[in-house]
Amino acid sequence: MVITISREFGSGGHSIGMQVAEKLGIPFYDGEIVDEVSKKSGYSPEFIEKQGEYIKKKSTYFNLSIPFKGCYEDPRDKVFHIQKETIIQLAKEGPFVIVGRCGDYILKKEEIPCFNVFIYADDEHRKARVLERYGKNDVDIVKRLEQKDRQRRTYFKYYTDEDWGICKNYHLCLDSGFLEEEKCVKFITRSVRGMIEKNK
Amino acid sequence: MVITISREFGSGGHSIGMQVAEKLGIPFYDGEIVDEVSKKSGYSPEFIEKQGEYIKKKSTYFNLSIPFKGCYEDPRDKVFHIQKETIIQLAKEGPFVIVGRCGDYILKKEEIPCFNVFIYADDEHRKARVLERYGKNDVDIVKRLEQKDRQRRTYFKYYTDEDWGICKNYHLCLDSGFLEEEKCVKFITRSVRGMIEKNK
Repeated sequence: MVITISREFGSGGHSIGMQVAEKLGIPFYDGEIVDEVSKKSGYSPEFIEKQGEYIKKKSTYFNLSIPFKGCYEDPRDKVFHIQKETIIQLAKEGPFVIVGRCGDYILKKEEIPCFNVFIYADDEHRKARVLERYGKNDVDIVKRLEQKDRQRRTYFKYYTDEDWGICKNYHLCLDSGFLEEEKCVKFITRSVRGMIEKNK
Repeated sequence: MVITISREFGSGGHSIGMQVAEKLGIPFYDGEIVDEVSKKSGYSPEFIEKQGEYIKKKSTYFNLSIPFKGCYEDPRDKVFHIQKETIIQLAKEGPFVIVGRCGDYILKKEEIPCFNVFIYADDEHRKARVLERYGKNDVDIVKRLEQKDRQRRTYFKYYTDEDWGICKNYHLCLDSGFLEEEKCVKFITRSVRGMIEKNK
């Protein structure tokens, strides 16, 4: 079973996912996917990091290219496609934890068993975490949160046609600001272990 | 602290809430609120049961009555208002578990500390539960689920102006079909106990 972790920026989803993978003794994929997609696509890791989860809006050029489908592929779509194939391939090889990248949607569509988790938090906790982890920059912290949320939401909507952060899309949704990281890790690992026991 | 449980029809939220209250040794309110509101409003428990959580749409008569505010109060609004006051009053007296009735929204607005949980499940689990609990009737099971969902969603939207089933409105969201009732009860009680420990 694959554990997919979708998360708000600054909610600690990356750290929670890493701890879950460690506790369960299975691989953890976040940046590792970027390297894999870079090798397969030829695009640089920096480009994939930027395009593989965030989207502002599709360009006019992309829309104009639709009638000539096959002649031109938007690099962002190419990255999404290779990323998708990489995730599916990995899921066929064994269990792992993956953070973001529409992993939940991609695996659900392929009918690959997965446990989908969403991690979020109130703005106060997120602001504190972002400042602690990445430090200040020129952009106001509130704007940074809004911008990343909007870009991830748009990316998810564009490639899945579903809304981000709707309970029904996940099996477990955790407010990491309220529950704290440690409890989130415990709830996820206990859920997974419970399911393994049940399916024995 | 008050524990509010919002739930989809057929997700087992009532049963989960009851078990949580029992484990924590605190009162459980669902039908009990109906009796209290009935006493205060003069409306029958049956009327309150029907109007206190479900709404189809506000009548034209209600809309026409807005210019004469004070002269006429829609019975549904009266029920909501008394229900709201009852919940706030109870929250001032001590901790409890409450199911539905916009409890989460009402207490958040009053800045009363509460732990908000959302329980949902996939349609297959919900159908099985509804048939087991309430049996068949003339209406097709899929339609029954859709109807109740729509009425609860509309009621919540009307009185809170917020969307139902959005992760951010809750601290913990649990798919009871996937996780099973027992695990849901455990996660809620552990979260509450953890918070009690932390605040000691």
